[in-house]
Amino acid sequence: MSADVLSAYPASQLAIREVGLRDGLQMTARWPSTPKKLEWVDREAAAGVRYFEVGSFLPADKVPRFADVREVIAGVSRHPGAHGIALALNQRGATDALATGVQEITLVISASEAHNAANVRRTQEQSLAEIANVVRLRDEAGSATIINAGIAMAFGCSLSGAVPEDAVLRMIDRCLEAGVDMVGVADTVGYAGPRQVASLCRRIADRLGPLPYVLHLHDTRGTGIANAAAALDAGCRILDASLAGLGGCPFAPGATGNVVIEDLVFLAETMGFSTGIDLGKLVALRDIPAGEMPGEALFGALAKAGPPRAMSWQAARP
Amino acid sequence: MSADVLSAYPASQLAIREVGLRDGLQMTARWPSTPKKLEWVDREAAAGVRYFEVGSFLPADKVPRFADVREVIAGVSRHPGAHGIALALNQRGATDALATGVQEITLVISASEAHNAANVRRTQEQSLAEIANVVRLRDEAGSATIINAGIAMAFGCSLSGAVPEDAVLRMIDRCLEAGVDMVGVADTVGYAGPRQVASLCRRIADRLGPLPYVLHLHDTRGTGIANAAAALDAGCRILDASLAGLGGCPFAPGATGNVVIEDLVFLAETMGFSTGIDLGKLVALRDIPAGEMPGEALFGALAKAGPPRAMSWQAARP
Repeated sequence: MSADVLSAYPASQLAIREVGLRDGLQMTARWPSTPKKLEWVDREAAAGVRYFEVGSFLPADKVPRFADVREVIAGVSRHPGAHGIALALNQRGATDALATGVQEITLVISASEAHNAANVRRTQEQSLAEIANVVRLRDEAGSATIINAGIAMAFGCSLSGAVPEDAVLRMIDRCLEAGVDMVGVADTVGYAGPRQVASLCRRIADRLGPLPYVLHLHDTRGTGIANAAAALDAGCRILDASLAGLGGCPFAPGATGNVVIEDLVFLAETMGFSTGIDLGKLVALRDIPAGEMPGEALFGALAKAGPPRAMSWQAARP
Repeated sequence: MSADVLSAYPASQLAIREVGLRDGLQMTARWPSTPKKLEWVDREAAAGVRYFEVGSFLPADKVPRFADVREVIAGVSRHPGAHGIALALNQRGATDALATGVQEITLVISASEAHNAANVRRTQEQSLAEIANVVRLRDEAGSATIINAGIAMAFGCSLSGAVPEDAVLRMIDRCLEAGVDMVGVADTVGYAGPRQVASLCRRIADRLGPLPYVLHLHDTRGTGIANAAAALDAGCRILDASLAGLGGCPFAPGATGNVVIEDLVFLAETMGFSTGIDLGKLVALRDIPAGEMPGEALFGALAKAGPPRAMSWQAARP
């Protein structure tokens, strides 16, 4: 059974996915309590966000920040139309994730052989075999969970340097051959510029046709929002971001992290997309990381200035 | 005598202008000492920056932060090929500025009648007459100083809302009729998105042909770098920015300011422009605002992460 990606990500709607509860908490000194994670989901759902990456399936004793992943998945599913996403790093994690009925499982593979080895201690071929096994598990379980292959280092690798577009496209093909329902590409270390993003997005769209793909950008070097704009212009319709830009970069301590979701929503609105997301409610939500994760840097410009006074400021042009 | 804009801004070269010494210091609690301003110019010139907006000609007793504007202009002119820019708000300031031989004087007029009144207590017609008088003064003096009309609120106004593109284009025409050598357009309050920027840039380029124009962006709501990318794609070749994004927004206390010059240089390099600017030296220069302006927020992502380890990371694609 192949999961229905187009139902989960309708072509008519821009999908901005909140990854703060997973990628945003990956490396922080503290993380919100389970009730505060659930409040985060509830309030962000009320603000209009529909997609939540909520945690990783990892041994709870080793990674306590994601020990409550099942509760957060359940918290997302309380909201009609909301879509939960969990990471799994191996078959065992995927089995556990499938048991929850989460809407989507992301498996990570790197476009760079060196980073794949460093990140998951496997060759790319081994990771592809693991992905195929997870798809088989899903099919055997009769599950409708979407299996998504997230391709890390798709715009350059801090270990091996440049990553050719052709290598990313080949990896996309391999993941689809392994049976995944959809793929994503990640600028894991924030190397990309907007022309590079536009170019890869156009080639991916040529390859995939109507099947949407995820773009996971980081703002490590200040290009995150510019890259998102380039992707939107190139037809990308699923973008990851996190509240206050939580997330950081494993290779650059102190660096900025994921694209700031508040700034991304503002950007999209200026570009004519109706995100359906309430910027005021989104900005107010920063009280949760501020309160639960003292000392953690909260990024973002929109939150400091607020939206323009008249949100119809674009209407009169030319 | 009309000043030679094309010599000052060769068509083959992207001009990234450092406005931190003027716009960046406009509202700060403290500002660098004159020796530190001169060190800023010296070190940034050594890093490859050629254009410096250095201050405003205002009564020194009322605006002490710019009392040393003549010394900073002289400091810029010590560097072969460097280009100094000063603001003048009236004929008296312009007369003083012309006496220094500064390469360029910027006069400000607003695309919004309401903001023009609030900012300089004149109607737009009165400001246009003042601009024409300054051009006459320049011509009578036989000066080669470029007169540049900076059009504020060109992408929306915090007082009057939307600003139609046609109104900006009419204001450009009026400024050129008043005799200015070049114009600039400013997103004074950070309302613009990249599609709006691209659209206006294309229309300005259609109007001006080979005559370049300045784009002065603010990052008030996180779109600064995305807007710069859109402008570069639309052929804009003169962009303002400031070290560490110094500058703020007069209508939003605590908001982010000018586009961060370090991030803009990185963006431009990812897009294939050879800026000739050394990112490491630029980042190191942040010690001046950090030391001279304690408590002032320093913005920017590139400075936290550093450039990618291999600056040739883009070379291998596709």
